[in-house]
Amino acid sequence: MTLPPATVSRRLAHVRDTLRAAQLDALVVTHLPNLRYLTGFSGSAGATLLLPRACLLLVDFRYVTAATELASALGGLLTVETFDRSYDEAIVDVVRRERALRIGIEAAYLPVSRFNAISNGLASRAALPVDSLTAAPALVATERIVERARLIKDQTEVETLREAGRRLGTLARQVPNFVREGRTELAIAADIDAALREAGFSRPAFETIVASGPNSALPHARPTGRPVAAGEPTVLDFGGVYDGYCVDLTRTVQLGAVSDRQARLYAAVREAQEAAIRAVRPGVAASAIDAAARSVLERHGLGEAFGHGTGHGLGLEVHEEPRIARPSPRLPDQVVEPGMVFTIEPGAYVPGVGGVRIEDDVLVTADGCEVLTR
Amino acid sequence: MTLPPATVSRRLAHVRDTLRAAQLDALVVTHLPNLRYLTGFSGSAGATLLLPRACLLLVDFRYVTAATELASALGGLLTVETFDRSYDEAIVDVVRRERALRIGIEAAYLPVSRFNAISNGLASRAALPVDSLTAAPALVATERIVERARLIKDQTEVETLREAGRRLGTLARQVPNFVREGRTELAIAADIDAALREAGFSRPAFETIVASGPNSALPHARPTGRPVAAGEPTVLDFGGVYDGYCVDLTRTVQLGAVSDRQARLYAAVREAQEAAIRAVRPGVAASAIDAAARSVLERHGLGEAFGHGTGHGLGLEVHEEPRIARPSPRLPDQVVEPGMVFTIEPGAYVPGVGGVRIEDDVLVTADGCEVLTR
Repeated sequence: MTLPPATVSRRLAHVRDTLRAAQLDALVVTHLPNLRYLTGFSGSAGATLLLPRACLLLVDFRYVTAATELASALGGLLTVETFDRSYDEAIVDVVRRERALRIGIEAAYLPVSRFNAISNGLASRAALPVDSLTAAPALVATERIVERARLIKDQTEVETLREAGRRLGTLARQVPNFVREGRTELAIAADIDAALREAGFSRPAFETIVASGPNSALPHARPTGRPVAAGEPTVLDFGGVYDGYCVDLTRTVQLGAVSDRQARLYAAVREAQEAAIRAVRPGVAASAIDAAARSVLERHGLGEAFGHGTGHGLGLEVHEEPRIARPSPRLPDQVVEPGMVFTIEPGAYVPGVGGVRIEDDVLVTADGCEVLTR
Repeated sequence: MTLPPATVSRRLAHVRDTLRAAQLDALVVTHLPNLRYLTGFSGSAGATLLLPRACLLLVDFRYVTAATELASALGGLLTVETFDRSYDEAIVDVVRRERALRIGIEAAYLPVSRFNAISNGLASRAALPVDSLTAAPALVATERIVERARLIKDQTEVETLREAGRRLGTLARQVPNFVREGRTELAIAADIDAALREAGFSRPAFETIVASGPNSALPHARPTGRPVAAGEPTVLDFGGVYDGYCVDLTRTVQLGAVSDRQARLYAAVREAQEAAIRAVRPGVAASAIDAAARSVLERHGLGEAFGHGTGHGLGLEVHEEPRIARPSPRLPDQVVEPGMVFTIEPGAYVPGVGGVRIEDDVLVTADGCEVLTR
């Protein structure tokens, strides 16, 4: 879907404010989800040079038609450029032509070889015109410029994520029917993937997890040829991409008899998830939401059994900010704000007994949250 | 599947020879397909420090069990290490501990921010022990060290790719049945994806392309809600991942009447594909294979209609070396050798008339090639 021009205009303005504050003349956007966020362009290659008064969308010959149509729908917000040689040479050319001097790059994504190619290209050409001798362009490593904007979903995104969540929640109600004695994890995963396509998702958001019996105790199991059996839990973790946006959901189902111990495990995880969802509201620390789930599991003696964080942001990527987890020196805590969308997915994994994980997606509202996947 | 220890041992020895020639003490492998090639480890995160006498596999807590089992199956070829903080800090720690001084990194993949983190980590710690003051470790940008080894498939890989190609070729014979009047491109793509899973592929190798009517004239169309109609071509381009290895195939099918012009277009592309396949043998330039296809299309007045290269390598990635195309200053020509596996996929795209592409996968043999997808 083409983005509304007002949405693109707002997103570009927001990022331009950041560039101005950082005293950057331009930002080279090469991370494709960021490029899609800013322009709506969804090709498999491309780059953007965002300038104070223009946004250049560089595409190779494969995407000229699609990009030109996009730019025309956006009425002057984007200018499409194509090139004969490589993206990096094209970036060097437009940076030179636009006379940008301090150029931000996306350090978390741009590989060293591309940084070197662009940097060397700018240096070698800088020597040509006389006015460049006094002011050669320089690349500046930046991080999280577009990602910070993506952290708070705008109305266009909320509508897409709400629809995606509704579809995934509906699909989740079918999923227990796929889990029948003797069927393999792989066959069940194939059913889920087919149901995702039928529900309007363009593709699974990640490799679907179906983990039965002992495999359910592994948080990141891959589906195997193991048949599911009665008396065992099966963890089903799946997601879909809907109009570019990712949603993600986990259910744990069990065929036949449930032992007391299994029932207690399930009830504890469910209680942890409910506590975490209740904790979500603007102004709380992400770590406090994690602590709400974790303290329930600790109270049930399952603190050690919960070895991952409580949730992660969702959007154009299936793992993005915010991180709903204990803070670390490298990954500081984040304050929750309205418009954030993330998963709440506590789990408990007990080798020998099995695992349980329950996951839903929430949108932070003015006074709490809306569960998108119910 | 765990790799045979002899295979891992040979691959490690091959890359160590390259490191020695480049006077490197170690190589930090962070590109996951390269890591999988060297060790068989197939997790979604990890790093390897390859040293002359050890190969350290760094994994986070999620993969400790799987990695330890892998290492034990490989009997001493790998040593698993885990860590509390981040991959980059763990890399700094092991480089320091192993006293490596010239450390290669994979510049085509390592992002600038990780390069900076590792580099700064090494510099700040270099000042601590006295002996480090005279010889601080330095990161060296390398390219294509593991990729060059991957270019020639070994016996383990050939067996996997042959089986994958056989399965994809068999599946391709079903595909015309999916194309029925009134069915949408998206529904047909979903059928293909389901058939891939049923045929034993763990997932599609890329987003399946179903491009009908005018869409068939776009080489990289995405499936839409458009229903296929009689008298129009439909290009179906799909691939699967089998035990980690990618195969890729395209067929063009048409319902109902075929006009003379469409028949000529199809015949020309088919003739171009046959000419290219006949041209494949050890010692020829990749560009000569491309020229074999291209000259047929030019002879039919379709030179302009063939806007992409003739093929690309296949293996742990769906696009890898060699590149079967016209050489460019940035991408030099390559000589074909036995053990290379690549696609042969000429196409012709005529706006208003439609497009045709036919693609199969070949393995270069001692005196020609074996078509894997028939």
